Amino acid sequence: MIRLHGYWRSSAAYRVRIALNLKGISYAQVSHDLRTGAQHSAEYRAIAPQGLVPALETDGGILTQSPAILEWIDERWPAPPLLPADALGRAHVRAMAALIGCDIHPLNNLRVLRHLRAEFGATQAQVDGWIGRWIAEGFAALETLVGRHDGAFCHGDDPGLADCYLVPQLYSAERFGVDLEPFPTLRRVGQAMARIEAVARAHPSRQPDADPA
Amino acid sequence: MIRLHGYWRSSAAYRVRIALNLKGISYAQVSHDLRTGAQHSAEYRAIAPQGLVPALETDGGILTQSPAILEWIDERWPAPPLLPADALGRAHVRAMAALIGCDIHPLNNLRVLRHLRAEFGATQAQVDGWIGRWIAEGFAALETLVGRHDGAFCHGDDPGLADCYLVPQLYSAERFGVDLEPFPTLRRVGQAMARIEAVARAHPSRQPDADPA
Repeated sequence: MIRLHGYWRSSAAYRVRIALNLKGISYAQVSHDLRTGAQHSAEYRAIAPQGLVPALETDGGILTQSPAILEWIDERWPAPPLLPADALGRAHVRAMAALIGCDIHPLNNLRVLRHLRAEFGATQAQVDGWIGRWIAEGFAALETLVGRHDGAFCHGDDPGLADCYLVPQLYSAERFGVDLEPFPTLRRVGQAMARIEAVARAHPSRQPDADPA
Repeated sequence: MIRLHGYWRSSAAYRVRIALNLKGISYAQVSHDLRTGAQHSAEYRAIAPQGLVPALETDGGILTQSPAILEWIDERWPAPPLLPADALGRAHVRAMAALIGCDIHPLNNLRVLRHLRAEFGATQAQVDGWIGRWIAEGFAALETLVGRHDGAFCHGDDPGLADCYLVPQLYSAERFGVDLEPFPTLRRVGQAMARIEAVARAHPSRQPDADPA
């Protein structure tokens, strides 16, 4: 049995939920409340030394870091594939994923925002500006990259790895009031993803640990 | 012919140089001076919309984002492999790579440091503190993860993907005066890597665009 250590609002855990659902894999969820720092417990750090979610408990051991987990999922259950069949296509899709996974999301992680407040006395308006800046800068490049490819999704006519990253980043952008008007292609892909039941089931609001709306 | 768009001090370009050298692939280098913002030129953005290095010009097209480029290199030239033969091993190595590639390096990128200075009036001491914090926090977890595996390198007895990330991050840590004493395993791996001529040739100081020492 697969067990996903996550949190309903964690973007990186959300990616993994989308991938598992697209593959039709059933899994249990273990929630770590990031607001109270539950992920820093000695017990959790023993399996995930960074004290970050997600982690995936598998028959073979514990996996950390969503980029590694997503590649493992795609290798373990190859159908439907998250990556294109050709090497160049795989490189393009992985670049889109890394654009979000390296250059947007980690900058807006809770631990970083807390540091901005504690160390630089950042106001909420400054924190919102920080979040919005990195999303808008990354999305502007991603809009160009995705626009180079035809199809309903980031790369072609099937949902794939880059889409697993895009949906949570769009959710986060909306949550923080980022203007998505300049990114029609990304919005269109997000809407196509939302129409897939496997993806919709991965939405934060539908997780067992979600706050009541 | 492969052409690597980079900069001598870019950590992400340094990773790609190590991988290409380990594979024995010859390549030309195109330097973009990050200090003058050369990577933001319209010409470069036309091929790399984020305006970041590295980018790799290949026969098939232009690749961006070092995580995607490194996977492509390993697929294109499988020997010697950068990833273990087993899926679990690959997941562990990719997790180490992502720990650096997502959770350390992007936070300390030049564009982020500039923003800290411009938006929050960060002093040099505060910027150094910011850099050191994310390196120390990430390295503490990485020290544990690497320590779980035997061998001279991050994972086993051959240099691989995680080592391609570790070497530039160690270089950056030393450059910014981060105390590496708490990370004996990482230092030992770094020393093992430095003894490999292919790795040593990738060092920033040995690149054509390096400042004279």
